[in-house]
Amino acid sequence: VARRLELNADRLFPAEPTVRSIARELYSQVAGRPLVSPHGHCDPAWFAGNAPFSDPTSLLVTPDHYLTRMLFSQGIPLTSLGISEKGQGDELSPQTARAAWQVFAQHYHLFRATPSRIWLDQTFSELFGLDVELDGDTADHYFDVIGDALTRDEYRPRSLFESFNIEVLATTESPLDDLRAHERLATDGWGNKIITTFRPDPVVNPEHDGFAENVAALGTLTNRDTGRWDDYLASLWERRQVFRSFGATATDHGHPAATTADLSREQCQQLLTAALSGRLDKHEADLFRGQVLTEMAAMSLEDGLVMQIHAGSRRDHNPPVHRLYGRDRGADIPGPTDYVEALRPLLNRFGNDGRLTVILFTLDESAYSRELAPLAGHYPCLLLGPPWWFFDSVEGIRRYRRAVTETAGYANTAGFNDDTRAFLSIPARHDLARRVECGELAYLVSEHRLSLQDASELAEDCAHRLARRAYRLRVR
Amino acid sequence: VARRLELNADRLFPAEPTVRSIARELYSQVAGRPLVSPHGHCDPAWFAGNAPFSDPTSLLVTPDHYLTRMLFSQGIPLTSLGISEKGQGDELSPQTARAAWQVFAQHYHLFRATPSRIWLDQTFSELFGLDVELDGDTADHYFDVIGDALTRDEYRPRSLFESFNIEVLATTESPLDDLRAHERLATDGWGNKIITTFRPDPVVNPEHDGFAENVAALGTLTNRDTGRWDDYLASLWERRQVFRSFGATATDHGHPAATTADLSREQCQQLLTAALSGRLDKHEADLFRGQVLTEMAAMSLEDGLVMQIHAGSRRDHNPPVHRLYGRDRGADIPGPTDYVEALRPLLNRFGNDGRLTVILFTLDESAYSRELAPLAGHYPCLLLGPPWWFFDSVEGIRRYRRAVTETAGYANTAGFNDDTRAFLSIPARHDLARRVECGELAYLVSEHRLSLQDASELAEDCAHRLARRAYRLRVR
Amino acid sequence: VARRLELNADRLFPAEPTVRSIARELYSQVAGRPLVSPHGHCDPAWFAGNAPFSDPTSLLVTPDHYLTRMLFSQGIPLTSLGISEKGQGDELSPQTARAAWQVFAQHYHLFRATPSRIWLDQTFSELFGLDVELDGDTADHYFDVIGDALTRDEYRPRSLFESFNIEVLATTESPLDDLRAHERLATDGWGNKIITTFRPDPVVNPEHDGFAENVAALGTLTNRDTGRWDDYLASLWERRQVFRSFGATATDHGHPAATTADLSREQCQQLLTAALSGRLDKHEADLFRGQVLTEMAAMSLEDGLVMQIHAGSRRDHNPPVHRLYGRDRGADIPGPTDYVEALRPLLNRFGNDGRLTVILFTLDESAYSRELAPLAGHYPCLLLGPPWWFFDSVEGIRRYRRAVTETAGYANTAGFNDDTRAFLSIPARHDLARRVECGELAYLVSEHRLSLQDASELAEDCAHRLARRAYRLRVR
Repeated sequence: VARRLELNADRLFPAEPTVRSIARELYSQVAGRPLVSPHGHCDPAWFAGNAPFSDPTSLLVTPDHYLTRMLFSQGIPLTSLGISEKGQGDELSPQTARAAWQVFAQHYHLFRATPSRIWLDQTFSELFGLDVELDGDTADHYFDVIGDALTRDEYRPRSLFESFNIEVLATTESPLDDLRAHERLATDGWGNKIITTFRPDPVVNPEHDGFAENVAALGTLTNRDTGRWDDYLASLWERRQVFRSFGATATDHGHPAATTADLSREQCQQLLTAALSGRLDKHEADLFRGQVLTEMAAMSLEDGLVMQIHAGSRRDHNPPVHRLYGRDRGADIPGPTDYVEALRPLLNRFGNDGRLTVILFTLDESAYSRELAPLAGHYPCLLLGPPWWFFDSVEGIRRYRRAVTETAGYANTAGFNDDTRAFLSIPARHDLARRVECGELAYLVSEHRLSLQDASELAEDCAHRLARRAYRLRVR
Repeated sequence: VARRLELNADRLFPAEPTVRSIARELYSQVAGRPLVSPHGHCDPAWFAGNAPFSDPTSLLVTPDHYLTRMLFSQGIPLTSLGISEKGQGDELSPQTARAAWQVFAQHYHLFRATPSRIWLDQTFSELFGLDVELDGDTADHYFDVIGDALTRDEYRPRSLFESFNIEVLATTESPLDDLRAHERLATDGWGNKIITTFRPDPVVNPEHDGFAENVAALGTLTNRDTGRWDDYLASLWERRQVFRSFGATATDHGHPAATTADLSREQCQQLLTAALSGRLDKHEADLFRGQVLTEMAAMSLEDGLVMQIHAGSRRDHNPPVHRLYGRDRGADIPGPTDYVEALRPLLNRFGNDGRLTVILFTLDESAYSRELAPLAGHYPCLLLGPPWWFFDSVEGIRRYRRAVTETAGYANTAGFNDDTRAFLSIPARHDLARRVECGELAYLVSEHRLSLQDASELAEDCAHRLARRAYRLRVR
Repeated sequence: VARRLELNADRLFPAEPTVRSIARELYSQVAGRPLVSPHGHCDPAWFAGNAPFSDPTSLLVTPDHYLTRMLFSQGIPLTSLGISEKGQGDELSPQTARAAWQVFAQHYHLFRATPSRIWLDQTFSELFGLDVELDGDTADHYFDVIGDALTRDEYRPRSLFESFNIEVLATTESPLDDLRAHERLATDGWGNKIITTFRPDPVVNPEHDGFAENVAALGTLTNRDTGRWDDYLASLWERRQVFRSFGATATDHGHPAATTADLSREQCQQLLTAALSGRLDKHEADLFRGQVLTEMAAMSLEDGLVMQIHAGSRRDHNPPVHRLYGRDRGADIPGPTDYVEALRPLLNRFGNDGRLTVILFTLDESAYSRELAPLAGHYPCLLLGPPWWFFDSVEGIRRYRRAVTETAGYANTAGFNDDTRAFLSIPARHDLARRVECGELAYLVSEHRLSLQDASELAEDCAHRLARRAYRLRVR
């Protein structure tokens, strides 16, 4: 017999009855608030074209490296999950999709007590009305139910967007992107709902695949000689303005370290020249990225774009997997991340200017209480981003608030963002965050460390206000 | 309508009813114990002169960098808080004080769920009888009530000291201090109540402002040529003995790292000579400080002074703020701190000598379970200081006990100290620590990991006995 | 009056009644499962010879560095605990044993709220029927009761093994060990119950006492010239096969860092030659050990032995104690441990091969969520060992599961192992782990993050299945 899948109304709240009842009260207040999603990786083409999603596997499994890495870690070949050796672009045949779904379902028990399981179960139950647990026996039933739903109009991207009650969703694009999807969205009156984010990694990270070609392409786009430092910067500036015209309120920077730099123009030109000819060593590449961060901060002071720094991931730790299956396969592994020395050059120039907003993310939780909360609790320009990646989870959010709040308060944090390419999971992710934040507030109230009235204010902050403020989103 | 300010009798106790009732029982046993304050930064001149405190802002806001940095981080200019660009010495006009108080009150919500809020609310309620919450509307009421109280005799420093039930309070002075305040206190029969602590940073840290002048002044004081290593050490020794005559039982060392060294006399002389002419690089400066720590340990074996090492703060991370407003403005940011290798030279010489006591403090919580508890759980000379600075808080104390106790027990910890220059907050700080310690003990009792009788013993230890023992304070 | 010693049936379960009742239910299911002990340091000669244990002190105090270091840290001389300056080999006279026991008993309060206390109290109560607490007054009573018991047949090693319900116990031997104890056990039909583990540190760590002599002795054993790299490896291989014939399913490697390497054969020969003549610097010694780890992984792919890497302990931090009393006196202190870069060379070669199992242990808890869970949640060959050493405790296990599970799940962890030389504590250690694991599962169930049915499966996994699977133990 299949096991019943039911979502308990009190899920993710602490068990202690007094705390739980406060959590429930706070949550009921914010549960229905629109979703504000200022950072993520959904494909804007989904919403521009509004074509139906193809099949359950391509939609829910193959692109989700949280899922594929866990299966891989337990010996499941990536190919058996429908991931082809050439890349993720190919469409799956119905047979392949169904077989891969079966493999996934048979190993669904691996996700017990993980956030992936919580997000998926909520999606299965609320979005598709499934009421038995996923396993090998129910795999076909799931595949059929979800597959059928996806053919219906109300499961097309724009309909889902609206039924999810999303107020605004930011996607993330390279400066080389033609932004045609966003153009189409603007034409269709969706420009305020789906906005872009300026993510210049491909043209500012000398270690990025095809860096020199990318910088040349940037020059072609802007009709400038991007081998010259001034033109290079001017090109970046011009692309930022184009991005702003498609709603961007933020930039995003995914760097291995939080290094920033403040070099002379001459040094900058030398680094750029060497970078373009592939002659930088690891330290110089880091310095180059760090210089660009400082330049981006200077531009942000001009154009008002909020900076996001996602530091600390060592990408593609597994060369064979990278070679065969490409990026984003779950082999990006964090390491210790220094913020205090690394951010000095940028902070020395702009740290006290409240017109600048820099949002810091970490994969090194030991930095929360030691470095990040003290920095954010002092510098006017700094905010702390929500728990990122491995830490966007029940325990992750709890540890974050307990490590950060006593030093930096709530006002120096940037609210929740889902940071996902798994569009269907967005409601579940926000719901998880809201439940856990309300549980944490209830914990404080139960110990008389916070009044219920203040908790109610902070529940609203966590659910949507902090994110709107941090990302300078206009309320509609 | 203003919101009521009420202190719940069960505040800071865990919510679970069984745990809470045990916590309440343990706390009721120790709540009234005298306050032992073996480390802090109150100004002894307050008690020597016993003049009334001037106004609420100068007393409670401008000198408290926990408050001013949080306000600054949210864009409030320091000048609007009554902090003048020249330094903190100037007295505030009544208008300026009131205006700054208003700014503070309007932003008091920033401190929700922080220890500052807990300390202040308790002070407002218990000391000043205020029964509405502080905000923009009640700011003037607060200013008037507190201001009036400060004019009354029972709010003078010595009266407060007695009404706070403080048994002993240690202040912290430079070797260059003339100790005149302590002399006056001794004359007035207060010598056992307010004692000094020997904090030689200005004459042992080559990176300290005015180091060479300070060392020269030290020579003048002791009539020695402090450019010679032996005289330099002898001068330090002599000042220690003067400090001992004013009650000092401890030294204190605020260093960026926990480095210690054990160099030859020749190397020491070379470092001193170079230090005095400003020729040390960062590494050598660190080595010099480290050598002094080892020398201090040798002296402690002779004169019995307990050593405190407060390591890991990178001071004055924000140069513009330092330049305009001076030190202690909330821009001291921690970084990772190594203890295991750093302390080797000192421990190799003196680590097994139980006559020496070295109390270690950290701003890098990852070191608690990895380095500090294993070190303190082995070396006879080592004790762990209580959670310091950012971690003198509900969550900070909980994390500390859970990270430390299983390896080092309670007996290798040094009890609570408030480490504050905010005199009025001392009762609230001790009360917070006692409540949280009792809550932690109750948690252990509730899981049958500790008997109630043992918990009762440990509650006394945490409240006052461990501090007395660690700092070699005589019980009166 | 002596205080009663009683073990509460609900000990170590969370206090909240709903959580506790779930924990109790899960625990009752697994409490009676056989003990699987795949890693530890019991002496196989105890079971081979099956002689009675001599006295309470030699059995329970002197060899347990958890106990002796805590006492030493509070100023108790090691000699007063019956530890002679020459080493631990000497037998204690009855008078010395009793006097040392008295010292231990008088300071037993130091262990309040530590795992040592929990293990010992359970052993005292369950194994020896003691019903008063240990202290100075009851010391003689304890010494007599335990001493008498040890003379009885049912307290001989083999009887205890069976009454403890141990299914399999792995000991740990050097490649130079003659394995005579295991030979005797095999002859007596105990070969499946007590197995060896291949721990080559003495012949692969150039910084080990007597390294060159050890490598020469290895050559004598295998009749090979171990000064030649190929013969050296072949000798290790041959000894592995001998260990396998005595039941070994695993190797174990206790290294200061997790460094691995992948050097050319020529470089390997150069390092070996230099190592044997004592000419390696610290970095080269680390590289040599790292190269051996990679070679061991290659051999494991051939012979199926599971690799354990216990990294991060800086051994013998206290030279005077090492000189006078030898190794394992509680002066091994952890430090920060990098896994991500250190394991690259090994993982690049073998990381994706599911036939290899490498179990990682840490003494740096900050690595759990930052490095170890992401690595184990990706690489097919990696599993995370249970909380080790200082962290084999209530809080240690809780922190581990909360830091690891959301990223790596349960299936990437290796189950519990007691890692002890304190044979009598084995039942208490497994019991503690089972109770705490069930408490954690109950916590998840109470928040509806896990179904009760899944929790029941995972309770079995944690109690015995994960360990059997990780160490490739055959179920009997």
